[in-house]
Amino acid sequence: MTREAMMKAVEGAMPLKRWKHTLGVMETAVTLAQRFGGDPHKADLAALLHDYAKYWPTDRMEAVIREQGLPHELLEFDKELWHAPVGAYAVQRDFGIEDEEVLDAIRYHTSGRADMTLLDRIVCLADYMEPGRDFPGVDRIRELAEENLNLALVAGFDSTIGLLVSKNKRILPSTVEARNSLITEVRTSKEE
Amino acid sequence: MTREAMMKAVEGAMPLKRWKHTLGVMETAVTLAQRFGGDPHKADLAALLHDYAKYWPTDRMEAVIREQGLPHELLEFDKELWHAPVGAYAVQRDFGIEDEEVLDAIRYHTSGRADMTLLDRIVCLADYMEPGRDFPGVDRIRELAEENLNLALVAGFDSTIGLLVSKNKRILPSTVEARNSLITEVRTSKEE
Repeated sequence: MTREAMMKAVEGAMPLKRWKHTLGVMETAVTLAQRFGGDPHKADLAALLHDYAKYWPTDRMEAVIREQGLPHELLEFDKELWHAPVGAYAVQRDFGIEDEEVLDAIRYHTSGRADMTLLDRIVCLADYMEPGRDFPGVDRIRELAEENLNLALVAGFDSTIGLLVSKNKRILPSTVEARNSLITEVRTSKEE
Repeated sequence: MTREAMMKAVEGAMPLKRWKHTLGVMETAVTLAQRFGGDPHKADLAALLHDYAKYWPTDRMEAVIREQGLPHELLEFDKELWHAPVGAYAVQRDFGIEDEEVLDAIRYHTSGRADMTLLDRIVCLADYMEPGRDFPGVDRIRELAEENLNLALVAGFDSTIGLLVSKNKRILPSTVEARNSLITEVRTSKEE
């Protein structure tokens, strides 16, 4: 499927506001890839597709999780987390995407995971800081992203964790593992 | 070994300030046990022993972790977390404590864990809120503890997570798992 046809399909799967967000994530992901030695083409593709399943009805997402053998523990967490792994499945099925790196970047763009790939980090960070985002701390994230991908992403996860704590909501262990990995890496690279 | 002899041994293993903290945790743990249907005798014993290894030299704690087969991932985290599992080993060896419930409450008093026992919760919460503790949010924890052990402990973990985020330090996944379990339990009991 051509990029143009995928763009049409993704645009049709979400409200205009989310499509503008998607365009922002694409632009930011490409910039970050150029800045930090990632693959701009993969960054563009993963960013385009990252929210493809965001507006699927809950029961459709739940069916994919159950029937396609996705981790069942997802069902115990916020529904907002489901669209990422469900989206990775859906873009493979609907658009024939087979690049595991791209699929992983979609799959882990909300939760993070231990030892994220460069593309995982780029898409996840772009999702936090694309130009349309406006939340307390986003300017600090953008500032850090000028120099250090990892510190910027730690700040992104910090904002998520702070929000979940303030709302008395559960935190995904994989988000904490992602943040721990990044902090360990930043420290190790400082010691070198 | 008698309680009196253990008190002498624990007092001798720490500075006066920490011994006063231990006495505070004992008093609070017994109160919480009475309030929430726990075993006051076990609460008193676990609280007395919870910080027994707190002032051991780092190399001595590390040797126990390595030689006694404690989880090696501990070594990747803050040294402040080591004394709890090392303490559980040490009180078994030095004082002949064999009660697994008491040993677990010592072992998990800093990190927490998924599905904490009632005694785990009592000792962990008492450690957060004993009368000598003074940190932002401690009064809210004490207030919640008048009525709801689980919500008070969630607030305790929230304070730890907030502190670690602000200091750019890693968060133990088991702390998040402990907090998640408690939130799930509070919600389920509300729905009943």
